[in-house]
Amino acid sequence: MATDVLEVIRTKRDGGTLSEEQILFFIAGYTDGSIADEQASALLMAILFNSMEADELTVWTKAMIDSGEIMDLSSVGRPTVDKHSTGGVGDKVSLILCPLVASFGIAVPQLSGRGLGHTGGTLDKLESIPGWSPHLTPEQFTDQLRDIGAAIVVAGDGLAPADRKLYSLRDVTGTVESIPLIASSIMSKKIAEGTDALVLDVKVGSGAFLPDLDLARELARTMVGIGEANNVRTVAHLTGMHRPLGRTAGNALEVAESVDVLQGGGPGDVRAVTIALANEMLDLAGVDGDPAEMLDNGKAYDLYCEMIRAQGGDPEAALPRAPHQMTVTAEADGYIAEMHCRKVGIAAWRLGAGRARKEDAVVMSAGIELVAEPGESVKTGQALLRFHAEDEALFGPALAALEGAIVLSEQPPVLPPLLIERIGVEDLG
Amino acid sequence: MATDVLEVIRTKRDGGTLSEEQILFFIAGYTDGSIADEQASALLMAILFNSMEADELTVWTKAMIDSGEIMDLSSVGRPTVDKHSTGGVGDKVSLILCPLVASFGIAVPQLSGRGLGHTGGTLDKLESIPGWSPHLTPEQFTDQLRDIGAAIVVAGDGLAPADRKLYSLRDVTGTVESIPLIASSIMSKKIAEGTDALVLDVKVGSGAFLPDLDLARELARTMVGIGEANNVRTVAHLTGMHRPLGRTAGNALEVAESVDVLQGGGPGDVRAVTIALANEMLDLAGVDGDPAEMLDNGKAYDLYCEMIRAQGGDPEAALPRAPHQMTVTAEADGYIAEMHCRKVGIAAWRLGAGRARKEDAVVMSAGIELVAEPGESVKTGQALLRFHAEDEALFGPALAALEGAIVLSEQPPVLPPLLIERIGVEDLG
Repeated sequence: MATDVLEVIRTKRDGGTLSEEQILFFIAGYTDGSIADEQASALLMAILFNSMEADELTVWTKAMIDSGEIMDLSSVGRPTVDKHSTGGVGDKVSLILCPLVASFGIAVPQLSGRGLGHTGGTLDKLESIPGWSPHLTPEQFTDQLRDIGAAIVVAGDGLAPADRKLYSLRDVTGTVESIPLIASSIMSKKIAEGTDALVLDVKVGSGAFLPDLDLARELARTMVGIGEANNVRTVAHLTGMHRPLGRTAGNALEVAESVDVLQGGGPGDVRAVTIALANEMLDLAGVDGDPAEMLDNGKAYDLYCEMIRAQGGDPEAALPRAPHQMTVTAEADGYIAEMHCRKVGIAAWRLGAGRARKEDAVVMSAGIELVAEPGESVKTGQALLRFHAEDEALFGPALAALEGAIVLSEQPPVLPPLLIERIGVEDLG
Repeated sequence: MATDVLEVIRTKRDGGTLSEEQILFFIAGYTDGSIADEQASALLMAILFNSMEADELTVWTKAMIDSGEIMDLSSVGRPTVDKHSTGGVGDKVSLILCPLVASFGIAVPQLSGRGLGHTGGTLDKLESIPGWSPHLTPEQFTDQLRDIGAAIVVAGDGLAPADRKLYSLRDVTGTVESIPLIASSIMSKKIAEGTDALVLDVKVGSGAFLPDLDLARELARTMVGIGEANNVRTVAHLTGMHRPLGRTAGNALEVAESVDVLQGGGPGDVRAVTIALANEMLDLAGVDGDPAEMLDNGKAYDLYCEMIRAQGGDPEAALPRAPHQMTVTAEADGYIAEMHCRKVGIAAWRLGAGRARKEDAVVMSAGIELVAEPGESVKTGQALLRFHAEDEALFGPALAALEGAIVLSEQPPVLPPLLIERIGVEDLG
C-alpha cells in the first residue's frame, strides 16, 4: 500500500515512528499543497503528544531543509559560524556578537527574524538605525560576508519553505509547544543557510520562550543533535532570561546599549553573554583570540560601523527618541529581588516596542530602561524603570502589565545564574 | 479575556476540562465556519489523546444537538423507542426489529445510515426492495409513525449539523477512534431525533467498528451516560460480531433473510439478538409482550409489509439476484472454528455489496451466503460460502480477501458468546 496521509497521521497518533518514506511524503505534500491544513495540524498535534525519536527528527528536519534552496557560502572564503537565540527581553546580543566575531576574520551569516509578543527581534532593532535595510540579494549577502564578515539580513522565501508553512499552521493550532517541532523549525533554517557551525543561545527564565530549565535543556540537546547529524558543528549555551538582559528593552534603546558594549562599556551581563558566545564561535572556527580585547580596543565597533554602512545605515546618526518618559519608582525600601522578565517585556510591548501579529509595525523609540536592577538596594521613591513612548496614553496599560513584576526583599537576594550550562555533542551521550 | 479557539485547543491539549463556554464557542464557531478546519482537527486530536470527562462530554453532545433542529414526535401519540447499532457484517436486525416493536403499538423512529467499508447499512439493504424510498418529509415521517409505528428514513440535513461537519473532518484527520467523539456523534443524532428511549447494540469482535470488548464496553457506558444526561432512557447490549450475523452479508440477500425471520424462521442468532433488543425496547416503553410470538404469528411481518408499502416499496416483489455464483469449499475435514467476520465483510464489499466512499453506489444483489457456519463439522470439498456477484471478475479479489478467514479445527470449537452483556444506567456506578 502506498503511503497516504491518514496512514502517516495514524502511525504517529498510535505512538509509532514515522518512516523516511512517510516523512518525505508528508513534508513534500504539505509544502506543495496536496496535503490539507487540517491533516497537517492533526499530525502536528499527534507529534506534540508522542514526540519524535532522534533519527526520525533528523529525517524530518532534512526534509524541511530540502523543501527549498540551500545557500552556498563557499565563495565567502572564511570559516562561517552563525548564532541563534531562542529570544528574550532585551536580547541585543546578535547586534554585538556578529561584528565582534567578524572582527576575527570569521564570517557570521545572520539570517535573522522579527519580534513577536513580549520578545524583541534583531531586525526590528537594527531598523531603528536611519537608512539601514535588512534586504540583500543572495549575491550581496555573500559579497558582504566575504568583504566584511558580518551581515544581518532577513531570510529569503526560498529557505525551508516547509518550515514557513508549518510554523504559520502551528501558530493557529496550539502546536507550537513541541520540542521536536521547535528544534526542527529553528535548525532547518539555520542549516539551509549554509553555515559551517552554529552557536545556540537557549534562554531560560520567565522572559524566555521556554521558561523551564529542563525543557530548555531538552530543546538545546535536540538542536545540537540535529546540527551534528547534518554536519553543522553545534554548541548550545543555556543563559538566564529571568530579568531583561542589560538595562534596555526596546528597539532604538537596545541599539544604543549595544553600541556602548561595542565600545568597551555597557552592562556587564550583556558583555558576559556576548563574550561567552564569541569564545564558542572562535573555537568552532578554529580561531584564537580574546573577544574582550576586541570590544575594548574599538575594533568590534569599527566592524559594526562597516556592517551598518554596507546595508545603507548611518551608525553615527541620532537614533529615534520618544517624546514622553515616565519613571516607575520603588514603593518601599529594600533590595530588588526580581524584575519579572516576561512582565517587563509585555510592558515594553504595550509601550509600542513589540507586536502581537507578524504584520504589525513596531515603534522604534518605545521601550523600557532599567534605572536600577535586580540585586540593588533602593529607597522608597527611587527610580526603578523609565518608560519611553510616543503616546502618554500607553503608560497606563504598560504600568498595568507590570503588576507584581518588581519584588523587593529585606535581605540581599540570591540572583539566578546568567551562564547556566554549555551543551556540546559530547554531552549527548 | 474572551474565549478564543487557541485557548480551547490549549486547554484540552494540556489535559484540562473544557468549560461550557469553551464548548459552546467551539461547536457554534465550527458549525458556522468561523473556526477553521485546521483548528478543529487539532482540538479533535487533543481530545483523542486526553479524552473528555462525563460532564464535559454531556455539554459537548448537547452543543452538537443544539447546533440544529430537534424533532418533535409528540404528535405521534405513542411511546417512542429507537435502536442504534454500531454496525457489523450481516447486521440486518433493524429491518426486523423496527416493525416487530411497532407491532406492539410502540413507535420506532429510525433515522438510519448507509454502509461504509466492510459494514453494511440499513438504508442500502432496504433500497434493494423495488420502489422503496428512504426519503420522507418530517410530516410524512411523524404521520407514518403515528399510523403504523415504524419508519426507516434517511436523516435530514437539519439534525446535528455540527456532527456532520465534525465527522467529515475526523474521517480525513485520523481522529475517528476516540470514544467520546464516537459516543457524542452517535448520541447527538439519536437525541436530536426526539426519541423517548433508546436501545444500543454495541458490536464486539473482528467485524465490529471497535473489535475490543473493553473499548466496546467503554463506548456503551459512555453512550448510556450521555442518553441519561439528556433524559433519553438508554440501555446498551454488547453483542457478538465475531462472525457475520445470520447466514447472509449483502443487501438483497439480507432483506430476504430478514423476511424469513419476520415470518418466524431464519437463523437463530439473528432471531436471538432481535428478540433481546425487542424485549429491552418493550421494557423502556412500559409495554408487556412476547416478541417471539409476534414473529411466529405473522403480525411482525404484516407490519413490515405496511411499513415498506408506506414508503413506496413492494414487499412481495422479487429481489435483485446476481447472475453469477461461486462456491467456496472446505480444504480439509474438521469443525469450522472461525469465519473471520471482518474478512468476510471485506470479501462481500469486494463483490460489490459495500462501498469505500460515501458517494459510491452499492450493488444490491452482491454478497455472501454462509452455506455452513462456525461450530459445524464439514468434509473436504463441502460448500462453506457462496459468493454472489454481477461480474465474475470480482470472485478473485473476494477470495483473496478471505485469505486465512476460515479456520478449521479437529475438536468442536468453543464459540464466543452472542449476547455478551447488558449495560443500563444502574451499571454506571
